[in-house]
Amino acid sequence: MEISTSQTIEILGTIAFAISGSFAAMQRRLDPFGVLIIAFVTSIGGGTVRDLLLGDTPVAWMRDVNYCLLILVTCLATIFFKTHIKKFKVTLFLFDSLGLGLFTMLGIQKGIIFGLNPGICIALGTITGCFGGVIRDTLLNTIPLIFKREIYATACILGGVLYYALVYFNLKTDVARLLVIAFIFVFRIIVVKYKLTLPKFGY
Amino acid sequence: MEISTSQTIEILGTIAFAISGSFAAMQRRLDPFGVLIIAFVTSIGGGTVRDLLLGDTPVAWMRDVNYCLLILVTCLATIFFKTHIKKFKVTLFLFDSLGLGLFTMLGIQKGIIFGLNPGICIALGTITGCFGGVIRDTLLNTIPLIFKREIYATACILGGVLYYALVYFNLKTDVARLLVIAFIFVFRIIVVKYKLTLPKFGY
Amino acid sequence: MEISTSQTIEILGTIAFAISGSFAAMQRRLDPFGVLIIAFVTSIGGGTVRDLLLGDTPVAWMRDVNYCLLILVTCLATIFFKTHIKKFKVTLFLFDSLGLGLFTMLGIQKGIIFGLNPGICIALGTITGCFGGVIRDTLLNTIPLIFKREIYATACILGGVLYYALVYFNLKTDVARLLVIAFIFVFRIIVVKYKLTLPKFGY
Repeated sequence: MEISTSQTIEILGTIAFAISGSFAAMQRRLDPFGVLIIAFVTSIGGGTVRDLLLGDTPVAWMRDVNYCLLILVTCLATIFFKTHIKKFKVTLFLFDSLGLGLFTMLGIQKGIIFGLNPGICIALGTITGCFGGVIRDTLLNTIPLIFKREIYATACILGGVLYYALVYFNLKTDVARLLVIAFIFVFRIIVVKYKLTLPKFGY
Repeated sequence: MEISTSQTIEILGTIAFAISGSFAAMQRRLDPFGVLIIAFVTSIGGGTVRDLLLGDTPVAWMRDVNYCLLILVTCLATIFFKTHIKKFKVTLFLFDSLGLGLFTMLGIQKGIIFGLNPGICIALGTITGCFGGVIRDTLLNTIPLIFKREIYATACILGGVLYYALVYFNLKTDVARLLVIAFIFVFRIIVVKYKLTLPKFGY
Repeated sequence: MEISTSQTIEILGTIAFAISGSFAAMQRRLDPFGVLIIAFVTSIGGGTVRDLLLGDTPVAWMRDVNYCLLILVTCLATIFFKTHIKKFKVTLFLFDSLGLGLFTMLGIQKGIIFGLNPGICIALGTITGCFGGVIRDTLLNTIPLIFKREIYATACILGGVLYYALVYFNLKTDVARLLVIAFIFVFRIIVVKYKLTLPKFGY
């Protein structure tokens, strides 16, 4: 069986978000079953919303049970290795950022396959990237850090614009994809590290 | 007009969840219109999410106005008889558990009709059974009792596994369905009565 | 290019909800990007849920990028003119009521096109009208004013019944539409001005 670039991105994104979901759930001391549910929801949330909006149903995870198995194995491995990881917060953040980049790229690609306008494709990528984390935080009843979510979305949108710029300058699609994923990953780390924010309104 | 086993299960489940929704709303002292809305949402929530994920649209309640009428009549009857019921909490719990069993079985069946993998069918059954109650509690702003929801989900998943085990041993489908519905109903009552929980993580 | 009555209603509704969303977000002092997101979600929320339930996908805003541009321009104009508006709360309320009337009528029409039962069409209109505002308030973490939402829904339902009554008495469709939109708009203003409520349960 050959695996395409898109599939590789999807598999890596699924793993990254399953890990980030497991960590977030363990941080809130959920029981093993709860951890599995949160890992699952974080991992499939973005793609499910994307497929619903496109009308590409049954949604992806229903058509291929392998993604469910992948999430199950990832989640169990994360629970198993948790004692070896000291910096919970940092690990969670890194995998979340990686998943964000991978899933945003995946959403943009799927929009292109459906023949949508570039602006809509970027929106679709942003939704695919962000929704898993948004659902995870909502279910875990974390204070809705709207600010953080905006930085989330900003990273995805800039990544999407970068993709179309790179393709416009005749870069090979696969290289452009890798650069976009890396850009979103690094952008988020820089933003969080240097606590950058967008200007706020004052009245 | 003949009514199949599936339809009987759907009608009973719709009634059970409409009653549980009405009770939950009256407990929070909503006005009659609010009670109707909550009864409606509780009753159709699970099936709507199931149909959206499958792409079986327009969703079920839009295609058959009889379900809407059934919910309306059930809700009005519940409001009318409320003075005769003393143990609100217990009645609400019993009808919620019954609806859970009925709708889980219904979701599994629909997954089988769509030719999905058994694991996915069980997940679909769990979603069909749980979502109505989850939306009801969210709208009523009840403290999200994640623990209770997990026991919810555990009952549905075990019920789903039981169904496939029974069918594997050549039990008649209709008998297997009844046993699964009864199992989920009784399982939840035992869990709540004896306050059983899953083991939690400690750090 | 000719624009039909339906399109005019959709354009006006999109603008009205984009303004109401922008105001609500500025009131909570979100940054410009956050204001744009809330304006967008308020404006497309109702129609998206409607299209998902009907299975009319990809959902409307994905098929026509002009609606996204319209929301962007409206939002920027609202941010620009904000200093000239003193009664934030009143302006927000008026545009929200106007959008409610326009989108409810639009949802009813779309249900009729899909050949649905009048009762279901009214429900669909109510969902189209209300959901944008509900999502807006949820994202902005406003205390869920269930009462207000009920008055919301009541206005939509009465408007829907009025539409079918007017059409039944052979009124021209376009005139009936305008009357229904005006009715919902005025009804909400009267209800809020005179603080009318539905009777509540007492135990």
